[in-house]
Amino acid sequence: MTTEATAPDETVPRRARRPRRAPAAEPGPPVQAGSDWSTWSTYDRAELGFRNHWYPAVWAHEVGRKPVPVTIAGEKVVLVRDDRTGAIKGLHDRCPHRGVPLSLGRRQFPGTISCPYHGWTYDLENGRLAAVITDGPDSPICGKVSVATYPVEERLGLVFVYIGELREDGTPPPVEDDIPAELTENTLVLGGRNEIRDGNWRFAAENGFDEGHAKYLHNTALWRLFKVMPTWNKTRIVERDGWLIRVQDEVHWEAEFPGVGRFSNKRWWKRMPLPDRPGKNGDANPVIAALDLPGFVSIRLPGILRVAYPQFIHYEWYVPVDADHVRYVQLMVRFETGWKAAAFKARYLTAIRWLFHGQFTAQDAWMVDVMDSPPERLYRPDLSLTAWRKHIEDADVVVQTVGGRGH
Amino acid sequence: MTTEATAPDETVPRRARRPRRAPAAEPGPPVQAGSDWSTWSTYDRAELGFRNHWYPAVWAHEVGRKPVPVTIAGEKVVLVRDDRTGAIKGLHDRCPHRGVPLSLGRRQFPGTISCPYHGWTYDLENGRLAAVITDGPDSPICGKVSVATYPVEERLGLVFVYIGELREDGTPPPVEDDIPAELTENTLVLGGRNEIRDGNWRFAAENGFDEGHAKYLHNTALWRLFKVMPTWNKTRIVERDGWLIRVQDEVHWEAEFPGVGRFSNKRWWKRMPLPDRPGKNGDANPVIAALDLPGFVSIRLPGILRVAYPQFIHYEWYVPVDADHVRYVQLMVRFETGWKAAAFKARYLTAIRWLFHGQFTAQDAWMVDVMDSPPERLYRPDLSLTAWRKHIEDADVVVQTVGGRGH
Amino acid sequence: MTTEATAPDETVPRRARRPRRAPAAEPGPPVQAGSDWSTWSTYDRAELGFRNHWYPAVWAHEVGRKPVPVTIAGEKVVLVRDDRTGAIKGLHDRCPHRGVPLSLGRRQFPGTISCPYHGWTYDLENGRLAAVITDGPDSPICGKVSVATYPVEERLGLVFVYIGELREDGTPPPVEDDIPAELTENTLVLGGRNEIRDGNWRFAAENGFDEGHAKYLHNTALWRLFKVMPTWNKTRIVERDGWLIRVQDEVHWEAEFPGVGRFSNKRWWKRMPLPDRPGKNGDANPVIAALDLPGFVSIRLPGILRVAYPQFIHYEWYVPVDADHVRYVQLMVRFETGWKAAAFKARYLTAIRWLFHGQFTAQDAWMVDVMDSPPERLYRPDLSLTAWRKHIEDADVVVQTVGGRGH
Repeated sequence: MTTEATAPDETVPRRARRPRRAPAAEPGPPVQAGSDWSTWSTYDRAELGFRNHWYPAVWAHEVGRKPVPVTIAGEKVVLVRDDRTGAIKGLHDRCPHRGVPLSLGRRQFPGTISCPYHGWTYDLENGRLAAVITDGPDSPICGKVSVATYPVEERLGLVFVYIGELREDGTPPPVEDDIPAELTENTLVLGGRNEIRDGNWRFAAENGFDEGHAKYLHNTALWRLFKVMPTWNKTRIVERDGWLIRVQDEVHWEAEFPGVGRFSNKRWWKRMPLPDRPGKNGDANPVIAALDLPGFVSIRLPGILRVAYPQFIHYEWYVPVDADHVRYVQLMVRFETGWKAAAFKARYLTAIRWLFHGQFTAQDAWMVDVMDSPPERLYRPDLSLTAWRKHIEDADVVVQTVGGRGH
Repeated sequence: MTTEATAPDETVPRRARRPRRAPAAEPGPPVQAGSDWSTWSTYDRAELGFRNHWYPAVWAHEVGRKPVPVTIAGEKVVLVRDDRTGAIKGLHDRCPHRGVPLSLGRRQFPGTISCPYHGWTYDLENGRLAAVITDGPDSPICGKVSVATYPVEERLGLVFVYIGELREDGTPPPVEDDIPAELTENTLVLGGRNEIRDGNWRFAAENGFDEGHAKYLHNTALWRLFKVMPTWNKTRIVERDGWLIRVQDEVHWEAEFPGVGRFSNKRWWKRMPLPDRPGKNGDANPVIAALDLPGFVSIRLPGILRVAYPQFIHYEWYVPVDADHVRYVQLMVRFETGWKAAAFKARYLTAIRWLFHGQFTAQDAWMVDVMDSPPERLYRPDLSLTAWRKHIEDADVVVQTVGGRGH
Repeated sequence: MTTEATAPDETVPRRARRPRRAPAAEPGPPVQAGSDWSTWSTYDRAELGFRNHWYPAVWAHEVGRKPVPVTIAGEKVVLVRDDRTGAIKGLHDRCPHRGVPLSLGRRQFPGTISCPYHGWTYDLENGRLAAVITDGPDSPICGKVSVATYPVEERLGLVFVYIGELREDGTPPPVEDDIPAELTENTLVLGGRNEIRDGNWRFAAENGFDEGHAKYLHNTALWRLFKVMPTWNKTRIVERDGWLIRVQDEVHWEAEFPGVGRFSNKRWWKRMPLPDRPGKNGDANPVIAALDLPGFVSIRLPGILRVAYPQFIHYEWYVPVDADHVRYVQLMVRFETGWKAAAFKARYLTAIRWLFHGQFTAQDAWMVDVMDSPPERLYRPDLSLTAWRKHIEDADVVVQTVGGRGH
């Protein structure tokens, strides 16, 4: 028989990788568990994340004279460095005149940005329309129009942008509210990656805190040559200081599955079990030891993951872009100075960046992209997911909706 | 005058090439004939084909250890060869846990497939969840979850998959019910092509059985150097053994069209007219002669075309993929053995494959792609189409809808 | 810190660049000014332009034996040159049989076009079905079916197509009704470009007549080395003979914007101010002088812009294609013969074509593409836009809707 390679099915349009929303309540039979996320109604609506939080956007060194457009929680923001003060400013990225993005505009006069179309010129400090070039100095519209401004802070080499309402005194809450305290209170050295990935931010966050997948999915990652992982655990979730922490009550390095076969994550060249609490070794870094964490992995609002090792901590931010994209910021942090910091930096650049922040988390990106849930059928280790969903359900959050400030 | 090549209109988005459905019945004036397909209401709804039928998918030799995803009648199926038995198995291509396609998974344990995300491991035989690597041997979910399985058979070098309900005894109907009998009852040699094309399966099937187009559209095909066709015919449709057969009562090789001109399909180097019933020549192949077909072209459910020549038969399967794509399987069959079979094979590979299964049917693919109907204005030779639509309307079929098994 | 270039936000799907329609009237609070275009309800509905007008399509020299498909005001038209008369004919580009575009068809018999699928053959003169090759000379459908025809004229090297109803005597209005009179009554030489651009035709037309943008947006265009423009003006709109004309009451070449800075459009190597009325110089072209225009820029239905300089005139047609695309026809015209015409032609080909019809209007295309309005916040110079919108509101126009002739 003569044959030919069959055309692959990729011509079939891919299903949108976005959690399906529970439909508006209607009289009818009760919904089957797992068929949607109506059990977590706040979470279900939070496809764009939460208001009244600071989110990291691009690296601070990327913002200069040239305007940089970013989208955070569905809001379009233009970031630009004020040439008078050196501070980064954030404005709503839309000229109210005809809707042209200000990020396409010109930096012609100090402390302003001008729309490229008609020269509507906005003060970076307060967003007020300061001049309209094509309407002369007596333009009656000046002072009557302004674009929304966004509070901006630089921390950890990143631009943090505040999305939400100001407090009664006209200021946003401190950016430190949305950064793990150990990162603002200690000297540190870090390396990181910052990219936009396909998929909703909730899938990325769930994947991060997921108790189950790392031990199987990442089994093939080169990083696992250096970091052993169990085959399966018994786990509890503990809440402390706003963090949910995964605590391992049992750790199993290998197992025999009846009728199926044996699976082992042991590595003969590595010592195991790992210490069950990061920072409890005698040789642990003092900052990490001081955290006194009961488990390796923790998560907190608005979507920050912390994976603590004895000598360094890995952080991930899941920043909602739009319903189908997430900004994924990875930081690897060591609390050292001097030659130890320099050695870590070298190790980051030559290994960690490629093995952990590269191949390893690219496997996560792959799953976040192909996941299609709900419907879903949760299993025992998913207590980490349901704890996180319930944590949000019980939290004092304001769900971001299209139509927030700047819309 | 100075000019420049005008940008072509291709920037204008193409209209979807899918038959328009009749809207839900509403009070109002009667619908004009041809404005939609409401005359054939079953057919109108059958954009995904029919349940309770066997459909060919990929070539059997393409399925090995590596999972192969296919979509049949809107259902996503993963095909994989069971290393214990050598048989091909079909499972719904979606892990119930978080919706990851099983076709991305690993073949780690004999007779199973594992979801790449958390190692949910399914028995290929019955779809039952046999182990969950990341939840240990005592995982309470094992045995409580399964994915749908699909009956699979290998015939004619193809993988046939059954879409629909099992019979009361838990088995599907025999695959032979959906394969022309002469193909399962005789020794044969075949060559073929198997590809996914744009357009709904009904357009492809109508194009195949269409009495009118071949004589004009394919006028420019090289294959026509060897096979002459009339300019126009008078035709009847006869039903026999579940097949609709086109019978030619009049054959006209050329014609003078008043006020327009002369059109001829005669070829001086070919004898004509052709015998009006395939297999009636003294030198016809005995299997084909035994079919005693009153015409060259026939069609049957669930979408199989047969074009009989005295020495060989060409078959086409129109397998619904989704509403906009059709799997188009072409087979050219000769009922011979020994050197005659070898000679046919050589002829297939050097000529038929490129001229008939290549350029000739690519013209059909072109029309199926650009067709945009209804509305439509049928003409006399379209009695072949209306007979086919009415045949389906009167048949005992179950229309496939999104939400069939596996959804 | 180690960083990596952030993936740009271009993965976020772009918002459709089409004016938002006012929703159907509902009881409720009054709409805020600028939030939609409900103030101009005819204009608001005119996304496909107006019926009963002639529109330029492709260049005439591009239409020969080979059929050319164009879309005008949402109607699909096939243009083809009749080999008997040399005249260009326009037919609805859809065979009524199964919806195959006639522009894919064959030119087999004189004065006809044949659908490629079944050889339905239409008379180019009247669109009547003259023969059906695959149904023989006695085909009963002949004479009972026809496709719509479109009046077509060649003027200025362009194919003009009439979209709309014929008059009571069965003829369309003269094409001269939709071409500026000076272009049909004088000897002239021209150069031009003809292309399809992204964006609705109304944005393109508004951009053309817009009083404000040219002086700022085009500030960086090389063309501005030769043509100086003010920084800002005070302007009136005058209506005359169906044209709206922008009249400048004040012209300011530079200005000091308090608290912002100085902006000047003066060029030391150019004389200014420009004469405030084109053709008023002693050395002006007599045809342009005779127009006696009170301002440089004028616009008229169905979407024609005229920018008059003392020696030549630039015209733009904004031809609706579909809701998201506009055919943008630019002509640069000089009313001369002999060596002056030849010199202009050379100047067009070496400079004007690249600087004005190239880089300069590409800046307009950029803005039309990124504009996202309404909502909008108009300013003083936008009186040109509101005059144009009101002009249409008050005009005796028939809005084109999907479902016009040929649908």
